[in-house]
Amino acid sequence: MKKLGEIIYTSDVSEGPAAGKRESHVPKIEVKKEEDYYKIKVWVGPHPNTVEHSIRWIEVFFYEEGRQFNPISLGRFEFEPGLVEPFAKLKVKLEKKGIIYALSYCNIHGLWENRVPLE
Amino acid sequence: MKKLGEIIYTSDVSEGPAAGKRESHVPKIEVKKEEDYYKIKVWVGPHPNTVEHSIRWIEVFFYEEGRQFNPISLGRFEFEPGLVEPFAKLKVKLEKKGIIYALSYCNIHGLWENRVPLE
Amino acid sequence: MKKLGEIIYTSDVSEGPAAGKRESHVPKIEVKKEEDYYKIKVWVGPHPNTVEHSIRWIEVFFYEEGRQFNPISLGRFEFEPGLVEPFAKLKVKLEKKGIIYALSYCNIHGLWENRVPLE
Amino acid sequence: MKKLGEIIYTSDVSEGPAAGKRESHVPKIEVKKEEDYYKIKVWVGPHPNTVEHSIRWIEVFFYEEGRQFNPISLGRFEFEPGLVEPFAKLKVKLEKKGIIYALSYCNIHGLWENRVPLE
Ligand SMILES: [Fe+3]
Ligand SMILES: [Fe+3]
Ligand SMILES: [Fe+3]
Ligand SMILES: [Fe+3]
Repeated sequence: MKKLGEIIYTSDVSEGPAAGKRESHVPKIEVKKEEDYYKIKVWVGPHPNTVEHSIRWIEVFFYEEGRQFNPISLGRFEFEPGLVEPFAKLKVKLEKKGIIYALSYCNIHGLWENRVPLE
Repeated sequence: MKKLGEIIYTSDVSEGPAAGKRESHVPKIEVKKEEDYYKIKVWVGPHPNTVEHSIRWIEVFFYEEGRQFNPISLGRFEFEPGLVEPFAKLKVKLEKKGIIYALSYCNIHGLWENRVPLE
Repeated sequence: MKKLGEIIYTSDVSEGPAAGKRESHVPKIEVKKEEDYYKIKVWVGPHPNTVEHSIRWIEVFFYEEGRQFNPISLGRFEFEPGLVEPFAKLKVKLEKKGIIYALSYCNIHGLWENRVPLE
Repeated sequence: MKKLGEIIYTSDVSEGPAAGKRESHVPKIEVKKEEDYYKIKVWVGPHPNTVEHSIRWIEVFFYEEGRQFNPISLGRFEFEPGLVEPFAKLKVKLEKKGIIYALSYCNIHGLWENRVPLE
């Protein structure tokens, strides 16, 4: 019986049926440092967007270097099927280095993650 | 016993203790039409942002003209207290006129709504 | 332009097309006092449960007597369309009297509320 | 840079600081078959429940045997810090065998998973 962490598809998947779904499901992450904040943009796609098949939500986490337990959930963003594109922009105050993780969920194709270092 | 709808503070509240909290709690809404989409920006503040007191989430609804029942929930956006600012940007496909509603929740000061027409 | 609070259907609606949807959409609430806790049960239905039409979520609020601002959001409960019934059970510590509110959302028939006193 | 799936603590963790937090953080899962439904109970604890430190939410997933992509998110359950215990009961229609996963989030101690077979 696999652990949940082992059935999350990742940006690195390169074989099996998931490989062909990678481009349309792995969340893209862009981080921009502004004065006091980071602007984090996360999105998925192009991906179908219908009631029967869409990216239902994205959740963003932060692994903070030096923190004893990780990660911190930064936010959850839910998108009405058929109407709203899987796109989120966060304005975040982070004072340490670490890793930004994004997790997206397609109701047909499961959980997909990606990550970028925050330096 | 008041109905839930009657205890949501609105952008119009002008008396009692809520009047003094209006500026910091009513969600601001900006709608911009792009080619195929509307970009809807919703945010609250300036407002304190600590674990003990923050804007926990914003939910966005659409009242579609001519639809028999309304509204449609477009999305829910949750913000980690102390770290993430109450700010959401939606990319939405809407084909009819109507009203965009935003509802924000402060764990100390309750539910606050605002609305703009979509024309 | 109506306020959001004015377009939430209530357990009292008795005319127009909403009256016919009342039985299947108004959240039912049951509160039971146990030693240190209240057990709050909230559910909706019988209601269709398909990907195209279902009760997507229920949110539960508490109006605490004597608190300057209300309500407090006690929890949000989301149900996978087609698979999970709109049913939630909460174990809650409440030390004052007040009102329990439930808000449910059907993607076709909008927002519905109900309330019971907590004594 | 570890993948997100690799930083989820599991019910099997047996060394390091996480081992000492296992009892209070791993979600417990109970599945009971009733006529047409499964009743799934998920809870965490005993665990502190304050605004500064609590189990913020539990999410339940289903790995369906024979489905090409997995898992399915069955529901998300959020608990107001300090007031609501991390406890969820789901009434679910499942027609295949598989695995029920629960994922819980403590704002101080991160993500924790557990799983039981559904037979
Ligand atoms: Fe997909
Ligand atoms: Fe406030
Ligand atoms: Fe309905
Ligand atoms: Fe903890």
